[in-house]
Amino acid sequence: MNQINPQAQPEPPHSEPLLKTSRSKVRRVPKRGHYDRQQVYQILDEGLVCHVGFVVDGQPFVIPTAYGRVEDQFYIHGSPASRMLRNLQQGIPVCITVTLIDGLVLARSAFHHSMNYRSVVLFGTATPVLEPDLKLAALKAFTENIIPGRWNDIRLPSRQEMAATLVLALPIAEASAKVRTGPPKDDEADYALPIWAGEIPLRHSPAPAIPDPVLSDDIAIPAYVAGYNPVGDAM
Amino acid sequence: MNQINPQAQPEPPHSEPLLKTSRSKVRRVPKRGHYDRQQVYQILDEGLVCHVGFVVDGQPFVIPTAYGRVEDQFYIHGSPASRMLRNLQQGIPVCITVTLIDGLVLARSAFHHSMNYRSVVLFGTATPVLEPDLKLAALKAFTENIIPGRWNDIRLPSRQEMAATLVLALPIAEASAKVRTGPPKDDEADYALPIWAGEIPLRHSPAPAIPDPVLSDDIAIPAYVAGYNPVGDAM
Repeated sequence: MNQINPQAQPEPPHSEPLLKTSRSKVRRVPKRGHYDRQQVYQILDEGLVCHVGFVVDGQPFVIPTAYGRVEDQFYIHGSPASRMLRNLQQGIPVCITVTLIDGLVLARSAFHHSMNYRSVVLFGTATPVLEPDLKLAALKAFTENIIPGRWNDIRLPSRQEMAATLVLALPIAEASAKVRTGPPKDDEADYALPIWAGEIPLRHSPAPAIPDPVLSDDIAIPAYVAGYNPVGDAM
Repeated sequence: MNQINPQAQPEPPHSEPLLKTSRSKVRRVPKRGHYDRQQVYQILDEGLVCHVGFVVDGQPFVIPTAYGRVEDQFYIHGSPASRMLRNLQQGIPVCITVTLIDGLVLARSAFHHSMNYRSVVLFGTATPVLEPDLKLAALKAFTENIIPGRWNDIRLPSRQEMAATLVLALPIAEASAKVRTGPPKDDEADYALPIWAGEIPLRHSPAPAIPDPVLSDDIAIPAYVAGYNPVGDAM
């Protein structure tokens, strides 16, 4: 789109609506479907691992991997020798899913047992990120998605490491979120049963950090490690 | 197989080796690959959600869903109207992945940042479970995989609910686990850098259970809810 006033702030990428297509539309329990970028970005930023689905000779593969997001771009990375990345960079269709489990939902009947969750499903095709500044920004996003604040403390990628890392980008355009929250929904007649029902909230909790056994004693633990809060990722 | 002595214990299913095929073999960092059933079963029993990969008209889909395991059978279920289940029951190739995130691995260099994890990737084709006793055992496995001990307390599936639930089975035969544990591995020269390095262990921790807002006050919380321990799932 043309910028009428080049001094103006660019449109924030979350203002462009997500594409609700036949493949991205939530079919089962459609009221749980969400198509706004903020909801999708929040789930992506809180997650640590995505599941990448792709097809080789008719066979589906689902591979877990770390990821990063910068604005409306979703990045995955790895060795240029990776089967997954070698296939994806040819521009084949890909489906990437991020799932956060928020709780167990215990209903009065077996049938209505469920989980509370937030998930994002993203469709598209991946392209290699070759431009050095963009590639470095993607590598920063991977590290900062693991633990915010880390990038400024570490040895940044060398030229060889940059060359040994293949980064692929997927535009976040055709995506949807699916969310379940709240208590169980039981059949009307079952509410009278003397059965405990409710939710057990779950979260990814950090245990105290374990220093590398060979770490020198005089290196203090950084605040972003001591105070690490996985949900804080989303901020 | 014929039982020569019908009184003898059947072979435990974990005695049959997993198939290490070109698709199930761990390619990247092969030393992290495991092919023994006990390792695979432990990861499956600790997980809550799997990611099911399948292909429709060349397009991959990756859908998160609950699951259950009984011996060497992996079960998923849902509405007979589910796009995923309707496709899978036609016997198309499927790839199912379960991933547990055990920790963040903070290295001295950006390049060596990683996560500790345990994952299982399972290949095969799914078939509907129609025999009522087997189907009920699978439904029990779903509930007990969410929270052990629950099945004995709840209203069991009615005939209508059984009919409204499609259960698919995948034999656990062609599968592999991939596991990373321990501290970061840095480049030799980087160990001298004054950078904190180590691991932040992560686990799925339960918060106190939230009773259904309409639950009668005189229904006590069961011990398996009050004492719920997600890692205990694996026992």
